[in-house]
Amino acid sequence: MTKVLKWGILGTGSIASKFTGDLPFSSSGQAYAVGSRTKESAEKFAAKFGIPKAYGSYEELANDPEVDAIYVATPHPYHKDNTLACLRAGKAVLCEKPFTINAGELEEVISYARENKLFLMEGMWTRLLPAVVQVKQWLKEGRIGDVLHVDADFGFRTGFNPASRLFDPNLGGGALLDVGIYPVSFASMIFGSKPQSLASTAFLGETGVDEQFTLLLSYEGGKTASLSGAVRLGLRNDAYIYGTEGSIHVPSFFNAHSAALYQNGEAVETFTDDRTSLGYHYEADEVARCLEEGLLESDAITLDESLAIMKLLDEARQQWGLQYPMES
Amino acid sequence: MTKVLKWGILGTGSIASKFTGDLPFSSSGQAYAVGSRTKESAEKFAAKFGIPKAYGSYEELANDPEVDAIYVATPHPYHKDNTLACLRAGKAVLCEKPFTINAGELEEVISYARENKLFLMEGMWTRLLPAVVQVKQWLKEGRIGDVLHVDADFGFRTGFNPASRLFDPNLGGGALLDVGIYPVSFASMIFGSKPQSLASTAFLGETGVDEQFTLLLSYEGGKTASLSGAVRLGLRNDAYIYGTEGSIHVPSFFNAHSAALYQNGEAVETFTDDRTSLGYHYEADEVARCLEEGLLESDAITLDESLAIMKLLDEARQQWGLQYPMES
Repeated sequence: MTKVLKWGILGTGSIASKFTGDLPFSSSGQAYAVGSRTKESAEKFAAKFGIPKAYGSYEELANDPEVDAIYVATPHPYHKDNTLACLRAGKAVLCEKPFTINAGELEEVISYARENKLFLMEGMWTRLLPAVVQVKQWLKEGRIGDVLHVDADFGFRTGFNPASRLFDPNLGGGALLDVGIYPVSFASMIFGSKPQSLASTAFLGETGVDEQFTLLLSYEGGKTASLSGAVRLGLRNDAYIYGTEGSIHVPSFFNAHSAALYQNGEAVETFTDDRTSLGYHYEADEVARCLEEGLLESDAITLDESLAIMKLLDEARQQWGLQYPMES
Repeated sequence: MTKVLKWGILGTGSIASKFTGDLPFSSSGQAYAVGSRTKESAEKFAAKFGIPKAYGSYEELANDPEVDAIYVATPHPYHKDNTLACLRAGKAVLCEKPFTINAGELEEVISYARENKLFLMEGMWTRLLPAVVQVKQWLKEGRIGDVLHVDADFGFRTGFNPASRLFDPNLGGGALLDVGIYPVSFASMIFGSKPQSLASTAFLGETGVDEQFTLLLSYEGGKTASLSGAVRLGLRNDAYIYGTEGSIHVPSFFNAHSAALYQNGEAVETFTDDRTSLGYHYEADEVARCLEEGLLESDAITLDESLAIMKLLDEARQQWGLQYPMES
């Protein structure tokens, strides 16, 4: 990188901390400013991470002329408005997953970015982790032949708390948008984002959001993906890719540190990523690379793909009769 | 056992060899006679396993008054007729899985057995393996709380051979009946055999049979099972059971040698079966136990359950448009 990319962090919650804590591992960027709804929270966050500027509003952050790119790290119902505000200020935006609440919101955001020739990308950081990049390379090299089936799940067991974001319909709660998007995005990376059909099932708990779900996606040529997510159930959290000549196993694929290539039941190659970071800096570097090359979107996860994934999530929720209050 | 159960082996193929080779590990039975379509094949099989009687027809085997129970080990399109012939001769029958080609055939067989008060059981041997019995015990004790999701698959990679039984529609080929019935029966063992809904997808290859499939079963209360099978694709071949308080992993569950109970991500208990047998003698002993107790079916896998499973398989095939020639 010839120029350091100055990041603005929009939001001061848990994911904002993870991303910002990883920025020192980036080869291209630094945390330059943070914006929060209160000056106090912004200053506390800035002090913790050694960030030069702290703003008591998102608007001030977006309007800082020194800020090159903004990482939107608010809860997902706010992603659309926050992202649009940053784009309107002319900033490149990396928006934490899920990109928005639904495809309608996302179309609005993408349209604005495209019309105004601004960089925009979904922060599906998993897709840029070295182990996943290695998986893509193995697939490209045909190491497991034709891929016919993908099996991935992500579920953790949290206590039931109707007040928490995870269970609150007003905050887009439920397993699908919070963790389910990982296996869905992973399958999309392999088979493309447009399956021929989607069958699904979900358990809607007492707050009305999906505490557990499974999606069965069918692609041309009989290819399939079986994907599950849960917020009150610890799942395996691994991804498996099955091909005609072998298979690939990615343990804890949502924050992958390794991947193994199997042939005839034996691991013939393994990849281990000995990073000490969480791994959020790879997406920061990807944004920097794209900006440097004058790209308006990343080919690691295009806006069309993000939108198609969001449409799939919408379709699944429609099958379950799950509509969020802000959608009605 | 007060009396040795004299087994008749109907068929001399691969599965007949496995069962017969395991009988010496049984605490209750012995291979007493074998029947084949040719005298030569029967005698060869008898010599190999030290079986006293060898018959050149299934009828002679069924009519040997010394034979107590018959293991039907022919390809599945013949199960119905072979089983009925044995029942008509008054024998107890253990029929290799899948029980029949479809539910219509199975209803016929079950009706005859029930009307004539004869013992009948599907040879779903996996369900009687010590590791699986241990799993049932853990579940009964509530060790993983409420079970909410089951994930199981069984797939192996065999070369495409249109002449082989696996790919031949006339022999009931395809993944579902051959290997798919294992994960389906496993889920049935846990959630019961009657899901609220079944979504499925399959790849029908050039011979018209399912080379790969996934079933998504939904049960009351949002419980789900994601089950896959394949004959040209090596899958994981493990079963996972996810509950509110933990999970259970059964590696190679279709011939389980072990099982592990997890809580908070750690194996808190493991079971290892150090048997040197393949494990087919457990079903032989179960038949002997039932006969000794005067039972007409085993409660480890009831006839109603076998029938409900077969109806599920029928429904899946109907969704795929897969009908066997003998069904039209």
